Amino acid sequence: MKTPVTVLGLGAMGTALARAYLAAGHPTTVWNRTPGRSPELKTERAATAAEAIAASPLVIVCLLVDDTVRSTLDGIDLSGKTVVNLTNSTPDQARATAERVTAAGAQYVDGGIMAVPAMIGGPAAFIFYSGVPGAFEKHRADLSVLARPEYVGADPGLAALYDIALLSAMYGMFGGAQHALALIDSTGGPAEPFTDQFLVPWLTAMLTSLPRIAGDLDNGPAGTAGSNFAMQAAAYENLVSTAAGQGVDPLLLTPMGELLKRAVAAGHGDEDLAALVRLLRTE
Amino acid sequence: MKTPVTVLGLGAMGTALARAYLAAGHPTTVWNRTPGRSPELKTERAATAAEAIAASPLVIVCLLVDDTVRSTLDGIDLSGKTVVNLTNSTPDQARATAERVTAAGAQYVDGGIMAVPAMIGGPAAFIFYSGVPGAFEKHRADLSVLARPEYVGADPGLAALYDIALLSAMYGMFGGAQHALALIDSTGGPAEPFTDQFLVPWLTAMLTSLPRIAGDLDNGPAGTAGSNFAMQAAAYENLVSTAAGQGVDPLLLTPMGELLKRAVAAGHGDEDLAALVRLLRTE
Repeated sequence: MKTPVTVLGLGAMGTALARAYLAAGHPTTVWNRTPGRSPELKTERAATAAEAIAASPLVIVCLLVDDTVRSTLDGIDLSGKTVVNLTNSTPDQARATAERVTAAGAQYVDGGIMAVPAMIGGPAAFIFYSGVPGAFEKHRADLSVLARPEYVGADPGLAALYDIALLSAMYGMFGGAQHALALIDSTGGPAEPFTDQFLVPWLTAMLTSLPRIAGDLDNGPAGTAGSNFAMQAAAYENLVSTAAGQGVDPLLLTPMGELLKRAVAAGHGDEDLAALVRLLRTE
Repeated sequence: MKTPVTVLGLGAMGTALARAYLAAGHPTTVWNRTPGRSPELKTERAATAAEAIAASPLVIVCLLVDDTVRSTLDGIDLSGKTVVNLTNSTPDQARATAERVTAAGAQYVDGGIMAVPAMIGGPAAFIFYSGVPGAFEKHRADLSVLARPEYVGADPGLAALYDIALLSAMYGMFGGAQHALALIDSTGGPAEPFTDQFLVPWLTAMLTSLPRIAGDLDNGPAGTAGSNFAMQAAAYENLVSTAAGQGVDPLLLTPMGELLKRAVAAGHGDEDLAALVRLLRTE
């Protein structure tokens, strides 16, 4: 028999998770604070979170926020369970949940879902996991039903950290693209040809620099990288003044200009892009 | 005979341009304010800018900044010349140069080089051009010696605008990636596996959303995009607090959080990402 699974929380994501387990033939018990959610799920519904948890060795938690996780699990005996928490949380929240869940008798695994609900069970989705390695390995196949599992370490905060690192990178890229599209829009020209012919190919080409930056960060600069921050900081002023000239708010550009100026002030005038990463570290 | 070409300015980029013309067999005249630069170029050297300009129908200008272009060309008769200005400039600077150069008798084309000097003459480089369409078409083959030419319109400011739009997008993407790498670096973990296995594939996948955003911008939202700004603005707080918790300066994240809040305040709680682009437009 396939591992019985309990899913706590039937928001859009929790419902997608439960649907994937049902489709894969796992005995599935669901619970939601407000009863009657996602009636299309034809499966066992528990009246309380404790009852739902008692039904399965593997408990998937996908609630609204970290506070809800705390209030839902508080006071419930978790002896012998594996609790996999897929609720959006920060690394520190994940570490605190790990302590409480472990104290209540369970093995804790935290996860960060890199997908929207519609992608669950599909080929493009993946989920970062961190926490008790044995608990993850024991349920690797069960977790693979949801998405490709990527285990990143024993510290329960790491999955959230990796998740948030990728989201941060995504927002940076979207912000840059949105600023570029606002500039094109300001000329009255259409955005689609610019995006298809130039923006996407250009960013795709620029992505190939990232492994070099990472290598410099790990091993020290490999040589003169040709990126003179003094020159870049000066040229960056053209980006800001062009935005102003076209009636585009430069707010998304401002902090990188600030960072380039800090790099010059710190004497990194001729250094590699990894120096900018190090300048972001305040500890 | 191939078109005789004059190159004004022998910085790293001007030298690369002159080298490409020499390699392609164009009679090439060079001039630099400080004489003796790039002695490896075995070609005609003019003593003055006026003399250099007189030598060829096609004049490529690649000087340090816009002010240098002004002071170099001022007072020189440009009758019958095609002036192609590849100096870094803003759209407004390009438009002002176009006026002065046209008044001096030349046809003006502005360009934005999307390459570093080492890429000139190679397959990956391209150059945006804008300005007098006939002048560009007449010299399309000559300009193709340098890089793939991409003509974007008659307004002489457009090449600089497209150039700056792509640079802005690039800095956004690099900023996001640098923040992500600082987070990984803060765990003591190496940056390279994260970059190769997760960061580059993730950003590559996210790039596929950009054409949809551009389409929404051109044609209005195609439907419910599933991006609830209210929820995103709330979740964004996790990104900022995680940075603080890991000792990473959140300055690169801050403006996007601000933009998401503006979107919610403007009543765009359930709208598409193109709404963020429109919010950047101040005019």
